[in-house]
Amino acid sequence: MTDTALASWTDGPAKRAILDFVVATTTEGGPDFVAPADRIASFDNDGTLWVEQPLPPQFDFVFRRWAEEVKDDPSLAEQQPYKALLEKDIAFLEGVATQDPEVVGTLLKAFSRTWAGTTPEQFDGEVREWLKTVKQPKLGVPYVELVYKPMLELLDFLTANEFRVFVCSGGGRDFMRVFAEETWGIHKENVIGTAAEYTYADGKIVRAEHALGSLDVGPGKPEHIFAQTGRVPVFAGGNADVDIEMLEAARFSLLVNHDDEQREFAYAKGAERSLEKASELGWTVVSMRDEWATVFEKEPTA
Amino acid sequence: MTDTALASWTDGPAKRAILDFVVATTTEGGPDFVAPADRIASFDNDGTLWVEQPLPPQFDFVFRRWAEEVKDDPSLAEQQPYKALLEKDIAFLEGVATQDPEVVGTLLKAFSRTWAGTTPEQFDGEVREWLKTVKQPKLGVPYVELVYKPMLELLDFLTANEFRVFVCSGGGRDFMRVFAEETWGIHKENVIGTAAEYTYADGKIVRAEHALGSLDVGPGKPEHIFAQTGRVPVFAGGNADVDIEMLEAARFSLLVNHDDEQREFAYAKGAERSLEKASELGWTVVSMRDEWATVFEKEPTA
Repeated sequence: MTDTALASWTDGPAKRAILDFVVATTTEGGPDFVAPADRIASFDNDGTLWVEQPLPPQFDFVFRRWAEEVKDDPSLAEQQPYKALLEKDIAFLEGVATQDPEVVGTLLKAFSRTWAGTTPEQFDGEVREWLKTVKQPKLGVPYVELVYKPMLELLDFLTANEFRVFVCSGGGRDFMRVFAEETWGIHKENVIGTAAEYTYADGKIVRAEHALGSLDVGPGKPEHIFAQTGRVPVFAGGNADVDIEMLEAARFSLLVNHDDEQREFAYAKGAERSLEKASELGWTVVSMRDEWATVFEKEPTA
Repeated sequence: MTDTALASWTDGPAKRAILDFVVATTTEGGPDFVAPADRIASFDNDGTLWVEQPLPPQFDFVFRRWAEEVKDDPSLAEQQPYKALLEKDIAFLEGVATQDPEVVGTLLKAFSRTWAGTTPEQFDGEVREWLKTVKQPKLGVPYVELVYKPMLELLDFLTANEFRVFVCSGGGRDFMRVFAEETWGIHKENVIGTAAEYTYADGKIVRAEHALGSLDVGPGKPEHIFAQTGRVPVFAGGNADVDIEMLEAARFSLLVNHDDEQREFAYAKGAERSLEKASELGWTVVSMRDEWATVFEKEPTA
């Protein structure tokens, strides 16, 4: 099976490390065997499974919503994060990556405000409309076409080896669940993320105005994964400092390094500490430029 | 496949209704077809999958813990629910079934107190010890031997028909996850219940002193199921008033009626409203006495 697996990966150290790990953990009687029940794999989304430049796609979606909310209630313009959005204060928004508690607090509050009282069907409709109409500004195609082909192959390879694959992102759980099945081939229940609490009344599920648990970044990632699955992951993939704790908690840790200016983007901003950790702890770093023969299923032509 | 399915069920209306529903929802092109992705089934635990008399088994586990906590801190004896426990005030504890907010509040607080600061490994060890040593007072065997065989066959039958089976109980999620895989043959991530929030620090998952979301009873059941899976169930099974909302939210609703004094127990306490709802809404009511040829894998001999 391993001959045809990971076809979009070059025969480099990352592919070899993945194949070796999967063989070792699935070889019954071997010293590194992992029982099938324990085979949980978890992957960050933004920058790990799809393009996150110039901003994570969900920010594009949410910013449009917030802009409308400011129109309806101009007093919001004086409050964060709306103020940062209107003033294009990227430094403020980058506070998420550093997990600045003030920034995280205002974001959770703003997310919750947007959620309150909507039904899953309404929200699904909004996300589907956005997926269909909005294009990534540089590459000129809808975001769902900017999923990394090598990573989809990796999800399939792990699934074929009885790993249960979860996506775990700081982004909204319900946002990702709209396209999880058609895009990643994994069920909604395998999508973990920052989430609204729901209430049930009069036969209807409706979102409450607060989050269920912590923001799903940093330590929030293993927390959410454990809450959802009852386990910490055996295999984890990420690309940024907000993924450090999830990668630390796993036995095999894959860090995607964005070093491909030609086909995608080259940047290490927000990933400085994770790249250090990778060399300190021996994580497998994937050079997009050198180790991915193909990046997208269909190369964007913009 | 349907010839050999549900072997411990008599050829009564409940078995026929289940078989008809599964055939209808899995027949492609038929008017009642349900796409595999949407096939979520959820089951209550206490009284639906195993014996809940004279008290739900987890109460046995938790009451022992609380008794120890009162020994360590005698001031607790004046507070609920410890007071009710010491005074054997069953009426108070039955407030859970009626979802009395005061009772629910004190229980959540007491659960959280017990959870605080423990690691999953510690908790697992305690539950395993309890599973091994404690016996059901009337039937004289460990609780895990008191799982209903017909229901295990139903879980298998649904799984074979591409339903994804979840257990959703007011009981503790982490408590059930300890034995879910060996007892029900479903993975930990398919177990939903009242749950502690976890925190991750210094490479360790530790339970925080508060619950994540609502108590998983009444409206909490569809809320928790939606949070975990992104869907409401297509098929649901329960046995009590705390299951009403989950059963209401499903397309096929199965209510287990405890009318078998000979082989199990006969009682409708805590299920009065659900039995009314069943006849009002046409749910499938299972008479344990008439529709289960066998109740337990191994009949208790006590």
